[in-house]
Amino acid sequence: MTILDGKATAAEIKQEIAKEVESIISSGGRAPHLVAVLVGDDGASQTYVNSKEKSSREVGFKSTILRFPDTMTEDALLKEIEKLNKRDDVDGFIIQMPLPKHIDEQRVIEAVDPAKDVDGFHPVNVGKMVLGLPAFVSATPAGIMYLLERYKVETSGKHCVVIGRSNIVGRPMANLLSQKAYPGDCTVTICHSRTRNLAKYTLEADIIIAALGSPEFLKGDMVKEGAVVIDVGITRVRADNKSGFKLLGDVKFDEVAPKCSYITPVPGGVGPMTIISLLKNTLKAVIN
Amino acid sequence: MTILDGKATAAEIKQEIAKEVESIISSGGRAPHLVAVLVGDDGASQTYVNSKEKSSREVGFKSTILRFPDTMTEDALLKEIEKLNKRDDVDGFIIQMPLPKHIDEQRVIEAVDPAKDVDGFHPVNVGKMVLGLPAFVSATPAGIMYLLERYKVETSGKHCVVIGRSNIVGRPMANLLSQKAYPGDCTVTICHSRTRNLAKYTLEADIIIAALGSPEFLKGDMVKEGAVVIDVGITRVRADNKSGFKLLGDVKFDEVAPKCSYITPVPGGVGPMTIISLLKNTLKAVIN
Repeated sequence: MTILDGKATAAEIKQEIAKEVESIISSGGRAPHLVAVLVGDDGASQTYVNSKEKSSREVGFKSTILRFPDTMTEDALLKEIEKLNKRDDVDGFIIQMPLPKHIDEQRVIEAVDPAKDVDGFHPVNVGKMVLGLPAFVSATPAGIMYLLERYKVETSGKHCVVIGRSNIVGRPMANLLSQKAYPGDCTVTICHSRTRNLAKYTLEADIIIAALGSPEFLKGDMVKEGAVVIDVGITRVRADNKSGFKLLGDVKFDEVAPKCSYITPVPGGVGPMTIISLLKNTLKAVIN
Repeated sequence: MTILDGKATAAEIKQEIAKEVESIISSGGRAPHLVAVLVGDDGASQTYVNSKEKSSREVGFKSTILRFPDTMTEDALLKEIEKLNKRDDVDGFIIQMPLPKHIDEQRVIEAVDPAKDVDGFHPVNVGKMVLGLPAFVSATPAGIMYLLERYKVETSGKHCVVIGRSNIVGRPMANLLSQKAYPGDCTVTICHSRTRNLAKYTLEADIIIAALGSPEFLKGDMVKEGAVVIDVGITRVRADNKSGFKLLGDVKFDEVAPKCSYITPVPGGVGPMTIISLLKNTLKAVIN
């Protein structure tokens, strides 16, 4: 059994990105510039945005956080987006979700210039991804693809079962892994809340993407010997330790891991790969 | 076994559309206007475009065919598209594919205003469809969805196996039928040329969408009792009859039909539903 070590892989890719940034700068270019827009003061969002900024700086990007109060109107936000679309010194930007309830998230997402949409949320990028055209792929699915690729996990002709049909993980994973490509060329089954007898599917799967957000849902007796298991879940639960909580994935690791050929841990699996994908997308935005 | 009669259903929907057009006109509106752009003189394309025009007129649409020689440059075509995007008297338009080889089809598709893209080929429409947002869905998948809906075929919780991952049929069908919607809420498996042991999947399927373009590929021993079978294939093969040819679907009908709860014939199944979807999209473009 091999651990798909997202933390180590992310560190490796970070170094590669840093080198690319150095080479851009040494050949007279400017540092890639990623802007994060944060509306309101949601704690988790603050943490995410700060961590994105830290990683950006570590690879030599210029990083800016634009903070606005949660009283900001939708119109004002759309105007900020319009400015960012036009700024030549901004390569990519993200609008940290969730937004305050009085703002229509979909309208905001569609206001972002697809060429700067490094989150890959704009329908144009989703559509291009699905059609197999060059596109910004959103961070979590892209991170999983990098991880499979780095570990040279065989995917062609494999049966992949995706649990969860969310627009940010399950659905893009199903579309990506069924593409004529590597990683890809899988026979893909997408399962969800309406699926009957889920274990029948997971037991037949060569590759399982668990992305339903239910702690330790996937048990040992739901997985066949030699399976590849990617755990996308990350749920904070109370625990008797110093911090008072621990993070659980969608996979009951101690039961499932011994049966696997490859498995991602939680934490340290898919999580660290996510920010990397955002950095890779920003680099792509510079080069385009 | 019930035949999903596309011809009869299409005729029924045509009447409904005609009524809506009448009501638009009687309340002082103008007839919906669909434009088809035809570049070159490909025989099959001529036939398709003429048949679209005929159907449009039958429901009371205004229909225009813009014909250009196959020497037309990409630039000139893009300029025509720009004009159509701007014309207030044009509700929707299609560029008949294939285009002459010197023209980049993808560039042309992306030049069409998504709000007039009644073929549903623009990545924005593909992306919105995948995200479950209102969108123009391309004609064949939309036609299949109408057919399932009209016959009230149960889909929720069913296992649907899609054979073929093309961007115009297989992939959109997989995305549509896995949505939280009706028709939809299926557990969907997408199979293709790299799938190993395809019969293993089809034998477990409650619903099969055969869209691989291989005449009589799906045999009786690949289908379970009570399955719903949608045959998207249509291949012209030589035959000893007056016309010298016949049309074959992807399903060996005489073997498969007796096992089915529902099945589409070829011809007269999915085919007639396709043009209907284009008309429905055009009507939607008017109302938007």
